[in-house]
Amino acid sequence: MITVTIIGSGNIAFHLAKAWHKSEKVKLKNVIGRSKKSLAEFKQFANVSSDFSSIGSTDICLIAVSDEAIGSVSEQIPQGDYLVLHTSGATNLKAISDKHRRGVFYPFQSFSKNRTFKYAEIPLLLEVGTVKDKELLIQLAESFSQNHQFLDSEQRLKLHLAGTFVNNFANHLFQIGFDLCQANKLSVELLKPLIRETTDKIMHIYPKEAQTGPAKRNDKETIEKHLALLPEGKYREIYKLITSSIQNTNEKL
Amino acid sequence: MITVTIIGSGNIAFHLAKAWHKSEKVKLKNVIGRSKKSLAEFKQFANVSSDFSSIGSTDICLIAVSDEAIGSVSEQIPQGDYLVLHTSGATNLKAISDKHRRGVFYPFQSFSKNRTFKYAEIPLLLEVGTVKDKELLIQLAESFSQNHQFLDSEQRLKLHLAGTFVNNFANHLFQIGFDLCQANKLSVELLKPLIRETTDKIMHIYPKEAQTGPAKRNDKETIEKHLALLPEGKYREIYKLITSSIQNTNEKL
Repeated sequence: MITVTIIGSGNIAFHLAKAWHKSEKVKLKNVIGRSKKSLAEFKQFANVSSDFSSIGSTDICLIAVSDEAIGSVSEQIPQGDYLVLHTSGATNLKAISDKHRRGVFYPFQSFSKNRTFKYAEIPLLLEVGTVKDKELLIQLAESFSQNHQFLDSEQRLKLHLAGTFVNNFANHLFQIGFDLCQANKLSVELLKPLIRETTDKIMHIYPKEAQTGPAKRNDKETIEKHLALLPEGKYREIYKLITSSIQNTNEKL
Repeated sequence: MITVTIIGSGNIAFHLAKAWHKSEKVKLKNVIGRSKKSLAEFKQFANVSSDFSSIGSTDICLIAVSDEAIGSVSEQIPQGDYLVLHTSGATNLKAISDKHRRGVFYPFQSFSKNRTFKYAEIPLLLEVGTVKDKELLIQLAESFSQNHQFLDSEQRLKLHLAGTFVNNFANHLFQIGFDLCQANKLSVELLKPLIRETTDKIMHIYPKEAQTGPAKRNDKETIEKHLALLPEGKYREIYKLITSSIQNTNEKL
């Protein structure tokens, strides 16, 4: 049984606590956070506290706070016999104070509190400062998802960048589609079967093979009709740039 | 029983023929196309022919060819007692020769032959040149999908534009994510649970509410780290433009 203390009360903290409070491999001892309001939601999973001195004896101290707070929070954690982890994709392991044994436990998913997830399928990217902590981190990983692997901080940042395109940026394109519908009194429900198929298809086919549309077939007439509907602004710029990128898709990376 | 002749042997023609060959409301008489090779796949659904004079007596003549060929194909169809439809989102009803009774039957989906679809859920956008053909077109629509509505050519083009963002352009962002993984020896499988969640979430939440990431929270440090990984080129330009669009998301449309 691994004992775990979570520091932070955001979305990642919430889903890790939710997964671990009924785990047979993990005992969630404590959730520590500043916001009494956020902590209230965690009482169903563990003891809650706003005091770092309440950490006491634990195998794992998991920091699930915003990227820029990882360093200072790790400084506030008293030195002790535990592995201190952060959960950030874009943050180096070394952001954690070097007074601790350090590691990273990065679940590659976009968490919201009111969504349910199949935790066992979420890719987990792991890193440790010293080899002797590897086994402990693997044990912790197994308690959450079978889909785990070690990745150094540089590679993890690259994966995070890829995630920014497929999640944050794709979502923005969905927003543009929704905005266009709303501006033109078309139901956004019309878009949903198409969005589903867009995603379902690339579960089986590489996106380059799945690419269709006026840009791909260089259908200048349709492109001109589309541009005539888009007033000057970011959406029009995005239309032009992505059209051009689809047509010259041999980027050096 | 409505009798239908399809002209064209591409992806839309294929799925309409597949849906209608076992319909109790539609009798698929004939599929007419130039390519003998493409037509071979249609023999399981109907008679095939390369000869426009084989159209004969039919209630519906449905043109499912590339946008730019709709006009000339409609010219080649002998005048007759049938409703002539095209299936294009970006093409005006008037692209069909005015010697015919005209209409539009636009299934709003991205079709590939080797994919299966729940036809009944695909939004169908309809248009007729004269009111008296409305009932016939509705009957035809009902034989394919319950999800149908009338939309004029201008509105249909706007929906097509929205579809270009959520399908063609989102797919390109998925490609960028896949390319980044491949260039950095990361499995593209890592992206799939995140892509699934990106889409699943906006089935319930408006994309603007679902937006997360460094652009949204103006996390300049992470944005700089990401840009340092992107060489000069389209993908870098796309990163910067969409980041900026997320941060100034009050477009006039």
